Amino acid sequence: MKNTFGNSLTVTLFGESHGPCIGAVIDGLAPGIKIDEQYIAEKLSKRRPKDETATSRREPDLFEIKSGVFNGFTTGTPLCIIIPNTDTISKNYDDLLGKARPGHADYAAFCKYHGFEDARGGGHFSGRITASLVAAGAIISYALQNKGIYIGTHVKKCADIYDSEFSDDLKTDISSLLSKDFPALSDEKYGKMREAVLNAKNDNDSVGGIIETAVICMPKGVGEPWFDTVEGKLSHALFSVPAVKGVEFGLGFSFADKRASNVNDGLYIENGEIYTKTNNNGGINGGITNGMPVIFRCAIKPTPSISKVQDTVDYKNNENTQIEIHGRHDPCIAFRACPVIDAICAITLADLLVLRYGTDYLA
Amino acid sequence: MKNTFGNSLTVTLFGESHGPCIGAVIDGLAPGIKIDEQYIAEKLSKRRPKDETATSRREPDLFEIKSGVFNGFTTGTPLCIIIPNTDTISKNYDDLLGKARPGHADYAAFCKYHGFEDARGGGHFSGRITASLVAAGAIISYALQNKGIYIGTHVKKCADIYDSEFSDDLKTDISSLLSKDFPALSDEKYGKMREAVLNAKNDNDSVGGIIETAVICMPKGVGEPWFDTVEGKLSHALFSVPAVKGVEFGLGFSFADKRASNVNDGLYIENGEIYTKTNNNGGINGGITNGMPVIFRCAIKPTPSISKVQDTVDYKNNENTQIEIHGRHDPCIAFRACPVIDAICAITLADLLVLRYGTDYLA
Amino acid sequence: MKNTFGNSLTVTLFGESHGPCIGAVIDGLAPGIKIDEQYIAEKLSKRRPKDETATSRREPDLFEIKSGVFNGFTTGTPLCIIIPNTDTISKNYDDLLGKARPGHADYAAFCKYHGFEDARGGGHFSGRITASLVAAGAIISYALQNKGIYIGTHVKKCADIYDSEFSDDLKTDISSLLSKDFPALSDEKYGKMREAVLNAKNDNDSVGGIIETAVICMPKGVGEPWFDTVEGKLSHALFSVPAVKGVEFGLGFSFADKRASNVNDGLYIENGEIYTKTNNNGGINGGITNGMPVIFRCAIKPTPSISKVQDTVDYKNNENTQIEIHGRHDPCIAFRACPVIDAICAITLADLLVLRYGTDYLA
Amino acid sequence: MKNTFGNSLTVTLFGESHGPCIGAVIDGLAPGIKIDEQYIAEKLSKRRPKDETATSRREPDLFEIKSGVFNGFTTGTPLCIIIPNTDTISKNYDDLLGKARPGHADYAAFCKYHGFEDARGGGHFSGRITASLVAAGAIISYALQNKGIYIGTHVKKCADIYDSEFSDDLKTDISSLLSKDFPALSDEKYGKMREAVLNAKNDNDSVGGIIETAVICMPKGVGEPWFDTVEGKLSHALFSVPAVKGVEFGLGFSFADKRASNVNDGLYIENGEIYTKTNNNGGINGGITNGMPVIFRCAIKPTPSISKVQDTVDYKNNENTQIEIHGRHDPCIAFRACPVIDAICAITLADLLVLRYGTDYLA
Repeated sequence: MKNTFGNSLTVTLFGESHGPCIGAVIDGLAPGIKIDEQYIAEKLSKRRPKDETATSRREPDLFEIKSGVFNGFTTGTPLCIIIPNTDTISKNYDDLLGKARPGHADYAAFCKYHGFEDARGGGHFSGRITASLVAAGAIISYALQNKGIYIGTHVKKCADIYDSEFSDDLKTDISSLLSKDFPALSDEKYGKMREAVLNAKNDNDSVGGIIETAVICMPKGVGEPWFDTVEGKLSHALFSVPAVKGVEFGLGFSFADKRASNVNDGLYIENGEIYTKTNNNGGINGGITNGMPVIFRCAIKPTPSISKVQDTVDYKNNENTQIEIHGRHDPCIAFRACPVIDAICAITLADLLVLRYGTDYLA
Repeated sequence: MKNTFGNSLTVTLFGESHGPCIGAVIDGLAPGIKIDEQYIAEKLSKRRPKDETATSRREPDLFEIKSGVFNGFTTGTPLCIIIPNTDTISKNYDDLLGKARPGHADYAAFCKYHGFEDARGGGHFSGRITASLVAAGAIISYALQNKGIYIGTHVKKCADIYDSEFSDDLKTDISSLLSKDFPALSDEKYGKMREAVLNAKNDNDSVGGIIETAVICMPKGVGEPWFDTVEGKLSHALFSVPAVKGVEFGLGFSFADKRASNVNDGLYIENGEIYTKTNNNGGINGGITNGMPVIFRCAIKPTPSISKVQDTVDYKNNENTQIEIHGRHDPCIAFRACPVIDAICAITLADLLVLRYGTDYLA
Repeated sequence: MKNTFGNSLTVTLFGESHGPCIGAVIDGLAPGIKIDEQYIAEKLSKRRPKDETATSRREPDLFEIKSGVFNGFTTGTPLCIIIPNTDTISKNYDDLLGKARPGHADYAAFCKYHGFEDARGGGHFSGRITASLVAAGAIISYALQNKGIYIGTHVKKCADIYDSEFSDDLKTDISSLLSKDFPALSDEKYGKMREAVLNAKNDNDSVGGIIETAVICMPKGVGEPWFDTVEGKLSHALFSVPAVKGVEFGLGFSFADKRASNVNDGLYIENGEIYTKTNNNGGINGGITNGMPVIFRCAIKPTPSISKVQDTVDYKNNENTQIEIHGRHDPCIAFRACPVIDAICAITLADLLVLRYGTDYLA
Repeated sequence: MKNTFGNSLTVTLFGESHGPCIGAVIDGLAPGIKIDEQYIAEKLSKRRPKDETATSRREPDLFEIKSGVFNGFTTGTPLCIIIPNTDTISKNYDDLLGKARPGHADYAAFCKYHGFEDARGGGHFSGRITASLVAAGAIISYALQNKGIYIGTHVKKCADIYDSEFSDDLKTDISSLLSKDFPALSDEKYGKMREAVLNAKNDNDSVGGIIETAVICMPKGVGEPWFDTVEGKLSHALFSVPAVKGVEFGLGFSFADKRASNVNDGLYIENGEIYTKTNNNGGINGGITNGMPVIFRCAIKPTPSISKVQDTVDYKNNENTQIEIHGRHDPCIAFRACPVIDAICAITLADLLVLRYGTDYLA
């Protein structure tokens, strides 16, 4: 399905970084979901670059809902949301055309699209496209919250600095993340991360990170054993986010050094409800939710756009060359990736829920 | 699509651990692919438990092709392959029914299937099902090899012991892995891993690991930016494999501590062909192959079945209880997972290739 | 998806006419659906040739459920059902290989499969494959009946002889059809049709027909405006049935000569429930069920296999030639198509219902 | 997938009759397809109401391509095309809200969307949405024509008046249809049909019709036996077009009265190429193209909107009532449906071709 994701609730993305607009079509929404435009705007504002830790491109992200909403509620028919591009400086890219930016999709895209691709600003590969995802995800996460399902993401690690861990009170942690301008549990740790990011920027360089997501109150028994596991569906969508190069659930790669006796999640029953004592499996067993919080982490690579001189090729002229990238870029994309991951998570889980409980579930 | 995976070339799985058989239907195969039954048998034999490092269940895996093959070649119509179950001892599970084995899918499955699931031996969640995947994958990887595309997987790490790294000569490494009885590049390291696994077994425990896959000669320009990235499609399928809890491409989670200037893959041209100097992105940029080897790793958790006493619940009687598991189990599943990952990788890449180049591509 | 149909509840078909077996995998079944093997056998017996109006190939259709059922109920995991082929006489086809049977798929299949197809008995194109569909449909229609949804099909017209019309009491009509050995409302009309079929047979010829299906008690509000209309989904599946060349709903092609004032279905309310006075739209408006019976008809072409001499080509030797077909064939396939249409209808509607109301709907 | 159609080349529709715009996203287009805006405009103009035989709503259909096109060629990334709505008079519908227009989707939509639907002008069920389809189809049919594949549709029958038949020279017939303002082969017959339509209009009534489509030069061997037959895929999409209630291929329902000896398409070889003498199967055998022209017909019901008084219900107030519809309507929709059918046919066949031959096929 390529640029469409989902089975019963689907999202289709379109748009290029320097085209007139970007957008998304959401299909399969229940009729009667309230559209809170303020809530969508807030989510978009979290993704937006704010200060010198991010690109200087400033888009107001004034979204327009073109269909699927009537009198403030979803109709149940496809909802198209469009976000105009306003602050595009294509000139920055003119010298680059044909020169592959190392670490970027340029050359791979050329192999696929044979030179017809709109390479300005990364075109359809640009992080800009994620604004549509955030808008679509906002509509859905608003509905999920009405079912008690909350999603929050923080930068767990950036440039070797660790944020505080999620506490046992995930609901409060998520609320705190949703209320802050930056996605970190500890303000102090955030300050240090910020400093490290600015250091990298001063060096004309960029840094990577790990971001971690928690979802509470997912119903039990959702997902499939083969192949539509909760992990498989989520990772499928998550790897679309530019810069994500790894996805792990629960202990993830740390399982490798463990013995089962230390990491098996023992179960217990309390007041008639079944829980696990630990949550090393991140709320999922055999691909299916077990009622514990869903926990996953994404590896974010350093933004490949840096203003240092780099060796590369000019694939249009078939020759070795060098490149210096002078566009507007993020010295660390991990922070702005958090609301995007929230959005993708909302979209994917909502699809699984609707498939499980029917199309009116989110109303 | 649940138990069916793929867009143009699809695989549907069926079967339970203690049912009469397991099997798979492959649809979308080109007509005219040679069926080498010996090759399929070899792949199955690699997945089969061999000695005391693995479960004592011994299945001959005598597969039967029920459709889609005529005169030794695929017809192009759906190929159904069935593998009878012969060595099932359901008695081992009788005492366990209703008791959730910690770390297993039992309780999540109960939440989904309301007690109608066939829980014997893990039922449809059992690693046994992966024999079907290996058989299906063998048919496809045979065809991929005729296009020059080779896939190999080794246990990179097990119980804190590291195998040798992939060398620059991946073709030789993969050949070596395909010829060995155990999936490790270094015989010496394998000996140490084996020892560690047997130690865990003696302690009635199990260990996890990390397995790493390399694919050579994938054509450039395959995959989609949103959402059917090569990473997304592969991870979607990989997380179905029991015990996989993390997937990373190229440097993966190691990107988190790096700066772009150190990890961007610079490009160069040599004899008219474009390469990257390093391959930190694992052969994929923007979700699309760039012609470099595709490299990924899967985190494998310790087999949850151990014979120690563990706290758990009896979900049929709603009470706390304890469990001792005395079935036949693997003290480390990482080794037997390697041919399964090879198979899933072959299936997923073949689907992307067929979608890109048409249904006759693999013939 | 090719040989798999459905979104939330899917059926995958496999098998060839002269291979070891045919079969189907049903995925997405609710756990806890009772499996009534007698009921499945009855449905298969309705499809089976019975007397001289049908082919002399006699298959016992002894089905085997290989997975997805435990203790007499569906588990919720994929159900594989297999029907062995026993009465195959491939010799009949040996002389024909390379000669295109006019009206059959032989030459089109050759263009697609390049000669690798198993052409014996039509291979994967054979009406034989529909036995799998009937078995799969039986499992589903049994569950639908528990929800009050009944499906019945009769031969409305055959060789210019019309069966009686459906009455206002569709429930009784459907019961009557389900209880009879032949799918006609009027025994007398059936007698005449039978005579006409035998006449055609005596002339070494075959005849076509029109078959009509009624579904009662489909919930209102099921289906989608674009593109997954109830009509679109049903017709998609129906055209797979060999010999179906037309599908119409309600008045269908008879709408062409009508004026709206005569055929618009006026609505009325009675005891709080809304109905239409007439049902010219066959229970569907805008692609969505309106609560009235779903009514559709399929055009069935005369079985192309006849034993008259016919002009054709030998596509393997690229020359004009003639053909006389001496296999075992049906002089009219409309009668045996009825239970197949019932099955496809059950599968398609069940998928729409499960997508609408969630995966437990049919339990 | 609901409002998205296709496997490898997909179209997603959105928009409501009285919303700000309607639109479509096409995904899976090859990079490098020329965008001829004049050609798209012409196709839209053919769908547009022109004189008193059609609704008096006059939309300029000034489309805007928002993404997926760069320097006049497709990029290969999703193409979003939007057509603003300008001439909406919602007032006409205010009195009607809650009153089900007989023959329309109003009540079925209410059952599905629970009253949240935008019922003005039929909302998402409106024929207005087909303008997006025509625009999307135009981009694709332009590319098909470059491969030699031409599609043409005429009104075969309207109010009991028959157009001339397709001749043996289909290429000329199609060219003629493409060059005319009205979709009829015979100008004289069209004049009579037009008269009949105006008569119905004078009677505050509407008439139905049958429209017939021919496609030439479809490659042989395209389509699948189960379930993605060419007939199945086409009919799936065709039944989305408002007012289509029947679809038949080749002889279709006329097969019912025929004997095989009269309608089997005998084959012959001429200059090394294989043809059938007749084309009663409409270019498709076993669901697969055989190289002959693809021929199908759609039954079009009389536009249900008529200004006569009709009995109906007010479903919001649960009472019997009457309705007089005074919006702007078409006394016969068969003529304006022709370019819509052309578009859907182009989209569907292109998807099958791309799936068969790979994503660059249409470039």
